[in-house]
Amino acid sequence: MATISSGDLLEQLKWRYAVKEFDSAKKISEELIDALEESLVLTPSSFGLQPWKFIIVGDESLKDQMPAISWNQPQPKDCSHMVLLAIKRNFSESDVNRFIDCLAEARQVTTESLDGYRKFAGGFVAQGVSEGWIEHWSTHQVYIAIGQLMVSAALLGIDACPMEGIQADAYDELLGLDSNEYHVVLGCALGYRSEGDKYATMPKARYSKSSILERL
Amino acid sequence: MATISSGDLLEQLKWRYAVKEFDSAKKISEELIDALEESLVLTPSSFGLQPWKFIIVGDESLKDQMPAISWNQPQPKDCSHMVLLAIKRNFSESDVNRFIDCLAEARQVTTESLDGYRKFAGGFVAQGVSEGWIEHWSTHQVYIAIGQLMVSAALLGIDACPMEGIQADAYDELLGLDSNEYHVVLGCALGYRSEGDKYATMPKARYSKSSILERL
Repeated sequence: MATISSGDLLEQLKWRYAVKEFDSAKKISEELIDALEESLVLTPSSFGLQPWKFIIVGDESLKDQMPAISWNQPQPKDCSHMVLLAIKRNFSESDVNRFIDCLAEARQVTTESLDGYRKFAGGFVAQGVSEGWIEHWSTHQVYIAIGQLMVSAALLGIDACPMEGIQADAYDELLGLDSNEYHVVLGCALGYRSEGDKYATMPKARYSKSSILERL
Repeated sequence: MATISSGDLLEQLKWRYAVKEFDSAKKISEELIDALEESLVLTPSSFGLQPWKFIIVGDESLKDQMPAISWNQPQPKDCSHMVLLAIKRNFSESDVNRFIDCLAEARQVTTESLDGYRKFAGGFVAQGVSEGWIEHWSTHQVYIAIGQLMVSAALLGIDACPMEGIQADAYDELLGLDSNEYHVVLGCALGYRSEGDKYATMPKARYSKSSILERL
């Protein structure tokens, strides 16, 4: 076990903020980018189905084109690595079968032994497709991933700026995603804050525990 | 800075799993529950608007009633504390004004100096209301919160089971939420795994980095 104290956890959760100005000269090391990628891969999801794809962009010429499709926000260009989180399009029972194969291999069991789970998860997905909410469900899972990514980054001392307001279709095109296969739903710029970012030292504005939290 | 090594972070992310069987005799200490509550309060959200409420249930008589409204899953009863994550209903520009007051107080500035931000966030919320997607947006924020909560718990050595499949309306009623004000969207059981939970030692089933992650 490599647990940490509650004081250390809260210190890092308070240290993080949505960076407005990155120091474009500071790059995340390969070791830490690898760890953040692993953290994305390890994100929990509904039924374990992982209805997503993550694209990590360090290429400067690609990053330079991003502010124009992000309402001119400079973070995707000035950060070290821009992460785009995409849902898998046309999610269906065949994706459930693909996951069952992955699960059987991980657990070293036959796929037949997982038939109950296949039917359960498959029924859920089929219902989501027929009732039209499957992409809402996939999008929810991607938000778990950005939550896990932001905490992971903070614990490694890496700054981040979550970005919902980006022009997702234009990102699909820039990244060469086949929009029948994947669709970007949000982004997260990663890197190191600029010394001049005045937002770094502003107090956080959070509602009090007593107003948004109830203990029963 | 209270950062940790990438090895320690990944060790805890691999240690966590969706607990099937909690040890009902083991309770989370007050210090650690306080830290998890603080972690929920600190969750980042779109525009900082925090469109949510969190209910932490340790009361045994309430928890005893939960399996019946959770498709008979035992985790809400056997865990130490059951967290319910709710969206704020009828979110509107008045909620933006409430947040602007909170922001002005935190930063010790006048609310007038935040008028630009009020208009920007207010316009976004008004659009979400008129176009009918505001509750999708609120729900997305709640998924960030469960992501942050699950990583925080893992780092403190606390087990968790995220629960999407609960009967949300019945939870609203059990918790005494006014459904015009708040609506439960998901749950997260927190506590300690039972020694007999065979899922604890099963290998994780995750797609390979190369199949769900692209580096550009």
